[in-house]
Amino acid sequence: MLNIGIIGAGRIGKVHTQSIVNFVRQAKVKAIADPMLNDATVEWAKSCGISQATKNYRDIINDPEIDAVLICSSTDTHSAISLEAIAAGKHVFCEKPIDHDIGRIKEVLAALETESAKGLKYMVGFNRRFDHNFRALRAAVTSGQVGKVELVKITSRDPEPPSAEYAAVSGGIFLDMTIHDFDMARYLSGDEVEEVFVQPAVLVDPAIGEAGDFDSAVITLRLRSGALAVIDNCRRCAYGYDQRAEVFGSEGAALCGNDSASNAQVWNSAGEAKEKPLFFFLERYMQAYATEVTEFIEAVMNDTEVPVDAYAGLAAVLIGIAATKSAKTGLPVKISEIEANI
Amino acid sequence: MLNIGIIGAGRIGKVHTQSIVNFVRQAKVKAIADPMLNDATVEWAKSCGISQATKNYRDIINDPEIDAVLICSSTDTHSAISLEAIAAGKHVFCEKPIDHDIGRIKEVLAALETESAKGLKYMVGFNRRFDHNFRALRAAVTSGQVGKVELVKITSRDPEPPSAEYAAVSGGIFLDMTIHDFDMARYLSGDEVEEVFVQPAVLVDPAIGEAGDFDSAVITLRLRSGALAVIDNCRRCAYGYDQRAEVFGSEGAALCGNDSASNAQVWNSAGEAKEKPLFFFLERYMQAYATEVTEFIEAVMNDTEVPVDAYAGLAAVLIGIAATKSAKTGLPVKISEIEANI
Amino acid sequence: MLNIGIIGAGRIGKVHTQSIVNFVRQAKVKAIADPMLNDATVEWAKSCGISQATKNYRDIINDPEIDAVLICSSTDTHSAISLEAIAAGKHVFCEKPIDHDIGRIKEVLAALETESAKGLKYMVGFNRRFDHNFRALRAAVTSGQVGKVELVKITSRDPEPPSAEYAAVSGGIFLDMTIHDFDMARYLSGDEVEEVFVQPAVLVDPAIGEAGDFDSAVITLRLRSGALAVIDNCRRCAYGYDQRAEVFGSEGAALCGNDSASNAQVWNSAGEAKEKPLFFFLERYMQAYATEVTEFIEAVMNDTEVPVDAYAGLAAVLIGIAATKSAKTGLPVKISEIEANI
Amino acid sequence: MLNIGIIGAGRIGKVHTQSIVNFVRQAKVKAIADPMLNDATVEWAKSCGISQATKNYRDIINDPEIDAVLICSSTDTHSAISLEAIAAGKHVFCEKPIDHDIGRIKEVLAALETESAKGLKYMVGFNRRFDHNFRALRAAVTSGQVGKVELVKITSRDPEPPSAEYAAVSGGIFLDMTIHDFDMARYLSGDEVEEVFVQPAVLVDPAIGEAGDFDSAVITLRLRSGALAVIDNCRRCAYGYDQRAEVFGSEGAALCGNDSASNAQVWNSAGEAKEKPLFFFLERYMQAYATEVTEFIEAVMNDTEVPVDAYAGLAAVLIGIAATKSAKTGLPVKISEIEANI
Repeated sequence: MLNIGIIGAGRIGKVHTQSIVNFVRQAKVKAIADPMLNDATVEWAKSCGISQATKNYRDIINDPEIDAVLICSSTDTHSAISLEAIAAGKHVFCEKPIDHDIGRIKEVLAALETESAKGLKYMVGFNRRFDHNFRALRAAVTSGQVGKVELVKITSRDPEPPSAEYAAVSGGIFLDMTIHDFDMARYLSGDEVEEVFVQPAVLVDPAIGEAGDFDSAVITLRLRSGALAVIDNCRRCAYGYDQRAEVFGSEGAALCGNDSASNAQVWNSAGEAKEKPLFFFLERYMQAYATEVTEFIEAVMNDTEVPVDAYAGLAAVLIGIAATKSAKTGLPVKISEIEANI
Repeated sequence: MLNIGIIGAGRIGKVHTQSIVNFVRQAKVKAIADPMLNDATVEWAKSCGISQATKNYRDIINDPEIDAVLICSSTDTHSAISLEAIAAGKHVFCEKPIDHDIGRIKEVLAALETESAKGLKYMVGFNRRFDHNFRALRAAVTSGQVGKVELVKITSRDPEPPSAEYAAVSGGIFLDMTIHDFDMARYLSGDEVEEVFVQPAVLVDPAIGEAGDFDSAVITLRLRSGALAVIDNCRRCAYGYDQRAEVFGSEGAALCGNDSASNAQVWNSAGEAKEKPLFFFLERYMQAYATEVTEFIEAVMNDTEVPVDAYAGLAAVLIGIAATKSAKTGLPVKISEIEANI
Repeated sequence: MLNIGIIGAGRIGKVHTQSIVNFVRQAKVKAIADPMLNDATVEWAKSCGISQATKNYRDIINDPEIDAVLICSSTDTHSAISLEAIAAGKHVFCEKPIDHDIGRIKEVLAALETESAKGLKYMVGFNRRFDHNFRALRAAVTSGQVGKVELVKITSRDPEPPSAEYAAVSGGIFLDMTIHDFDMARYLSGDEVEEVFVQPAVLVDPAIGEAGDFDSAVITLRLRSGALAVIDNCRRCAYGYDQRAEVFGSEGAALCGNDSASNAQVWNSAGEAKEKPLFFFLERYMQAYATEVTEFIEAVMNDTEVPVDAYAGLAAVLIGIAATKSAKTGLPVKISEIEANI
Repeated sequence: MLNIGIIGAGRIGKVHTQSIVNFVRQAKVKAIADPMLNDATVEWAKSCGISQATKNYRDIINDPEIDAVLICSSTDTHSAISLEAIAAGKHVFCEKPIDHDIGRIKEVLAALETESAKGLKYMVGFNRRFDHNFRALRAAVTSGQVGKVELVKITSRDPEPPSAEYAAVSGGIFLDMTIHDFDMARYLSGDEVEEVFVQPAVLVDPAIGEAGDFDSAVITLRLRSGALAVIDNCRRCAYGYDQRAEVFGSEGAALCGNDSASNAQVWNSAGEAKEKPLFFFLERYMQAYATEVTEFIEAVMNDTEVPVDAYAGLAAVLIGIAATKSAKTGLPVKISEIEANI
């Protein structure tokens, strides 16, 4: 039985907790920590069978009975808590991104290389890799059904834009939203990104532009193998959360679409209608979140490789920084430029 | 170069003429005959390059330069004109049905068996056999992709009901509308029908019921091989002409759906919408009509088998009569009962 | 907190137990009973947090702390245990069918009418009513999107046939398999069945025929409103569990298809391919089972109507008996005939 | 009755001739010209009812009875023949591109502005604008169904790569293949392109790369309104001709896919399969070609605007030249730079 501590009891912390309680028999959430801890959260924790609730995440880090921590706190705390947890000998599942600062991400990678960290698992929460549709695409690639990969296409649109305030502190669309798509491009292709070019736009909310960010973009990627990838993003989508992908190769293509609450259609004099996609990430990726945390726990318990390692966390942020620079300069940016400047 | 005479210049006569003019280089429509011949029809004929137009179909039958006739006149004249045309040594393409009277159909079959008719082609106009979708289904069956056929399912719904007046003289829904589906069941299965049971209903227009007919029905068929078929019909369909089929067998199923004017979809906050099916038979089967008449002409010119022979015309009417009887008695009816009573 | 006893720890008993443990916070499985109780089952019960396991279901019936029982035992015990449970003042969720004998079902209905049973909930386990696709169809009907219902079509095919031994004791295909579709016809139409006609066949396994049963059938139903329904069944389906439905009405149609593990497609030189449907009922209806048991518990706790009442259990068996008679006689059978003969 | 002369009796010249013969009653192909004229072509012309066949296109230009010419000759002759035809007072339908040289295209535009050309129609053969699917997308845009256009996405893949020899003289992939997609981006958005960035690649045939061309590319476009467009191209596609498009806007999206020979599906133990797209442009766009030439003739006869004017021919080539430059420099290129350098 694995004892787990949840650091950060916001939306995503609760999702992971619930998944463990409902689906993972061999693990137990022993404690949660949240700086804003209030009665409602304590009540919720109790209803999940969690007896310990604290405002101080160090109560978890220092608890010798806790084997693994899930870092679900605010982004700016991820790398620091990661380092403390590794030092305390805990296995770590860290929500993406590890940090927006490459140097701090590298500190985490270095900490994992130390003697004392031997055997510790560190996984980054790129939840989409656990989605049934994207996994089916990846399986089509690895089984050779599309041949040599030549192009990865990803459409990723949010149903509703964030506030301009959020946009201003989010790190920008490329580190906040596209980062998932950068990871998906790596995952689906099994390849590394070498160059990024961004055509950014402010088409949804001028206030987002005034905050220095963008709400729409087309991003092209050149991969190490010579293959290409293209991502289109929008912060607003009238029909809901649009998450589609396509991998095109020498032998064919693999494509996946959105999921809906049902596959029912209504045919009438106006035409043939079916339901919109599931509203947003909690609806679309609920099963993916459960699979993700389950696979983390399995990797810890069986001492096998985690499905998304710390390097994946580094790579996606590097691409995001390159994309941000491309958006500002209007020029293509090589990942090697970004790495060289650190 | 084959010379053709068109008997009956109504809607379907015009469709066939147009197909020959547009697509069949090796045939020429020499004459048309229509008892209602008027200036507009003469004008139309001229625009198609047809110089002869007559009120008397015998002008065509007796024209020694005409090789083949297309009988597109009213149903009650089909068998009589067929007999005259065969006697005059013409190849015949006859719109369905040959007749509603089995005895008269058998006279036509007998005439085709005479010495003097040797080499004459006689084809019945079951246009749906030439539709790209149904042909793909049949190809899936003959290539073994569905294994041994166990069930044929046909949905056939018209966009708008006929008038009660039409219903009263149409021969009834089973001989007027379902007859196409009976032929399709034979075509898709490659099998013969042995027993029919009808659940008829008047759900669309009570006047159709008062005229002694039905506007809705579910018809089950037992085939000689033991396989089953089921047809559902309705004289009204809010979303247009619904023409779908499915063949289920030991190895799988083959299914086809409707055609639309385009495959475009619109996704918005109301859901995902696509176009209705093509409105009615002229839209859906326009290409099938062209293929049908082309294949008739090819069979004549190459002296090969016609794709829909006179027996198919007999078989569909036999099933239609059995269905009509089942609807009246509320009991299953064997085709052999119908044949025995003639 | 509701205390629940599970009677019958076979496949479906385990599914319901798991659903309650995973998803229903306000209920607790206190005990399971199974005449074949073995170590593995006891172990499994423990892993679900159930401390009591017994071979004797009366330990559950007589436990005053238990509020509700789930009857998941063999079909022949359903009605007897139902009666005992009702007498003991327990709420009951009973797997379908209540019984194959109409008289015994009516005893259960009568018991529910007694003064002492006032306030007790009795629900029958027609799980498909809780499936997201069928619910969306029903919603399209009740919201008026299809207008007046004219035709319900149901396709229901199992991936693999049962053994002839099972077929011999199953009550026959119409009471064992089609019973779900009979309930679905009632559910989707909101109407009652008046007449049944069956075209049965043995096309899959001759041994099933020798056992006196059928493995294929087309069943037509006439409903009280005059609308029709048609069901096609097969005990074997090469591509897996086929569960589709369509409701056609004066304003349009609502249709639903199968679910797959993903919506990924692979396009290559052979064509465009997508995955087969989910294999069988446990895969397809897993979420439906969880919703079903959740709604039972909610109905008990909130004292609201159960979503599938005992009368639904009676109606489906009546139709099944009529269908069985129709298959034997080759004639249509009225439900009123069946009721009159009891 | 309009008299038409066809200049160039290659594949596309024959397609247009056939369309006029089959479908356009009010026009007549009077003559064809082809420098390679041989017996087979003369024979073919006769079978189409065309009596005049010449090696010298000036026989057509100088024929006072000919009202309109279709320029279907090799690309390098388009602008010169256009100028001669305009000077001779002929209406012109010119296959794309007018020229690869912007200066020569502008000469054609200038010639059309002269007094003597008043009333002459000049249309460029961007056939895809006449495709039923793309027209449905455009209709969704103009009717406001997608709101303000934010992104146009076009996938355009050929089934088989050209020879390296062809690639070397084709003007390059962007002027030879993508030019259609550039026009489509303008057509679907109703907007003008301001900037182009190309990620080109040689992934299919190294010989194409050695010939100085590319066989794969992702092209991003910035439009005047601020909207974006993205095109992905490949010269080889295992499943055939892939021609899809999507327009995304503030209110939703409109999408269209490929056409197949039928919509039949086969479901078996391997999954659910449907047919590949129609093989190549002649199959996919056959109807579009007929509509295109019909609308040209209608514009001439009714003195209305042609659906694709000479400016569209200029605009697409400008974008193609910008794309070619971007591919070479690895940098985004503004259309205004290209225009300024001429």
